[in-house]
Amino acid sequence: EEHLAMMNMDDPYANEPQRHPVLTIRTKKPFNAETPASLLVENFITPTEIFYIRHHFPVPDVDLSSDDYSIEIVGIDEKQSLNLNLDQLKTVYTPHSVTASLQCSGNRRSEMNRVKPVKGLEWAQGAMGNAVWKGVRLRDVLLDLGVKDSDENDNWHVRFDGLDMDPTSAPYAVSIPLSKAMDPRGDVILAYEMNGETLTRDHGFPLRVVVPGTTGARWVKWLTRIEVSKNESESHWQQNDYKSFNPSADWAKVDWSTAPAIQEMPVTSVICDPQDGETTTLQDGKLQLRGLRYAWSGGGRGIVRVDISLDLGKTWHVAELIDPVGLNRQWAWTRWRADLPVAVKETEVWVRAVDSAYNTQPEGMEHIWNMRGVMAVGYHKIKVSVNAD
Amino acid sequence: EEHLAMMNMDDPYANEPQRHPVLTIRTKKPFNAETPASLLVENFITPTEIFYIRHHFPVPDVDLSSDDYSIEIVGIDEKQSLNLNLDQLKTVYTPHSVTASLQCSGNRRSEMNRVKPVKGLEWAQGAMGNAVWKGVRLRDVLLDLGVKDSDENDNWHVRFDGLDMDPTSAPYAVSIPLSKAMDPRGDVILAYEMNGETLTRDHGFPLRVVVPGTTGARWVKWLTRIEVSKNESESHWQQNDYKSFNPSADWAKVDWSTAPAIQEMPVTSVICDPQDGETTTLQDGKLQLRGLRYAWSGGGRGIVRVDISLDLGKTWHVAELIDPVGLNRQWAWTRWRADLPVAVKETEVWVRAVDSAYNTQPEGMEHIWNMRGVMAVGYHKIKVSVNAD
Ligand SMILES: [Mo]
Ligand SMILES: [Mo]
Repeated sequence: EEHLAMMNMDDPYANEPQRHPVLTIRTKKPFNAETPASLLVENFITPTEIFYIRHHFPVPDVDLSSDDYSIEIVGIDEKQSLNLNLDQLKTVYTPHSVTASLQCSGNRRSEMNRVKPVKGLEWAQGAMGNAVWKGVRLRDVLLDLGVKDSDENDNWHVRFDGLDMDPTSAPYAVSIPLSKAMDPRGDVILAYEMNGETLTRDHGFPLRVVVPGTTGARWVKWLTRIEVSKNESESHWQQNDYKSFNPSADWAKVDWSTAPAIQEMPVTSVICDPQDGETTTLQDGKLQLRGLRYAWSGGGRGIVRVDISLDLGKTWHVAELIDPVGLNRQWAWTRWRADLPVAVKETEVWVRAVDSAYNTQPEGMEHIWNMRGVMAVGYHKIKVSVNAD
Repeated sequence: EEHLAMMNMDDPYANEPQRHPVLTIRTKKPFNAETPASLLVENFITPTEIFYIRHHFPVPDVDLSSDDYSIEIVGIDEKQSLNLNLDQLKTVYTPHSVTASLQCSGNRRSEMNRVKPVKGLEWAQGAMGNAVWKGVRLRDVLLDLGVKDSDENDNWHVRFDGLDMDPTSAPYAVSIPLSKAMDPRGDVILAYEMNGETLTRDHGFPLRVVVPGTTGARWVKWLTRIEVSKNESESHWQQNDYKSFNPSADWAKVDWSTAPAIQEMPVTSVICDPQDGETTTLQDGKLQLRGLRYAWSGGGRGIVRVDISLDLGKTWHVAELIDPVGLNRQWAWTRWRADLPVAVKETEVWVRAVDSAYNTQPEGMEHIWNMRGVMAVGYHKIKVSVNAD
């Protein structure tokens, strides 16, 4: 037993939280797991316990009672700095809640991998979720720090450090444009609650950044440091990862500096039920399709439409949107449904979404293929077998 | 001679401005004409005299010396109102300049028309231009009127009336979201200068709205009235035009209320030189391509890349961007160039752009076809014949 304790202490992953068995595990150490798509579409708000998990390192374990935890906030010059513990943060600033979907840059990578192998976790369609986040506005904190609403700092960044660290003790760190953080309609918050409860360790207890409309990699968990800077983060995750390139670029000769770090994500949509390869039974002669769309591109633009084709793009049906949609600050996904008559035993189903700037999805993964397998937002295409009802 | 004068007075188009002969005329009354693409790509700033013209009605002729002209600005309740003449507007508010591209919703409609006929002016690729606009910030005027920076008015609109009128004397009128008008980084201005000179009649003298990143239909010319409203404009141009639908929708049964009015436009790009069907001579064995891309989707997001394919999408080359590009508030287009080796006598060239949210263009016009022929932003595809050098 003493030997076992010793072993655990040597294993940086010895103190991981318990996870829900329904999650589909992609890697155990670090822990990466997604929600099965059929479950994802059941709820507008994804229950916390089945929300996808994407970690780079072991999960930090913060003891708030020990007085060790605080957030250091640093401005452009040394005179600007704040140091707040969680109680102070909650007391000083007005709470703000945001319903926002979170998605990994690599969601749907497995579909791109089928075109040609890519590097990265083999996500299906479930590396995303939707939650109600509660915290304080980063804008309010930065105004307190002395940051101005001005044109001149438009190219500045806000850097975030997490408590999670690589084996050399370098923290997970990234940055977002200061203009997004300062935007009164940007809804960037420092969140301490998820779905009405204290953040869980797997989702960043005690504090994570919520950056609506922006890729998951920027929503730093276990937040410990915020710094306003004239330049974006120099971290690996900002500079040499989470970028997309031309399909003809390859690892051997790519110049990472030629592409910007992914921040906002393009419009996308998926079919959740049935799933690719499944056999489904018609209801009143109709194929029942259910899915999700995200149109967070462009700062929370709502969706205009979700279109479905059962004949390889020759004709298109408009799906019904289940959840409420606004045209602005629409940070949450929308579930859709379509019941369509089919008269064949096998059918291919295509879905694509259109956002309120009429951006739509590319027709396939071929032309957007990239070596890192990110931004896999081509039409979602599945084949299903159909039983008459 | 008297008879001639009588005739002219009866013709609402008798008092039109002179236009540059290089413009390609699409309709004479109302006057609609575009810039040939080969000229468009010669300048970052399009010279005013060859800037495309898109009118719905005869061109108003405002006499500033007559004291008749003023702008009425009305808020949500009657107590909020301002009435300013041009001198007052210029004196009271700080001038602000913006370099912004303007594009008609129907630009490139002729390419979509080839898939299946659509309704609208047969624009090629030249119903767009780039200019430096100078005026006053609409935000400043609205703050003076008493409009607040608040979440509660996020769904309100700002309505604009022009002096141009339909035969029933209804003015051309549309609206934009108030959130765009109030955005400190939105750069919406009431412009009285274009490219360093007083606005010309064809471009809205004495005042037009400039709404960077938004479709041309909202940049009201000959502006005479501004009204803040809880609802968007009820005009024809807001409600029953300038909208896009599913490819399977048709005029007979479409419900216009189901689609939002076009505001922001999606990312697009075109090849300007050579043009479709041309024969071109290689330089040092290379095909010289020149073109434009616009990535105004998402509030002035810059472009990440312009990709060129000479083999129907199997491999892609990255074009060189000629003009400076920012990642934020990039309201102007960017010219690109690519010199690519070709070893065949006939080649098809494809171009597509990718914006900083990694939105890209659809592969063709087929799946985005819509009855009104708007948002024609599929890859631009041309065929050229090649002479060895
Ligand atoms: Mo991610
Ligand atoms: Mo237009």
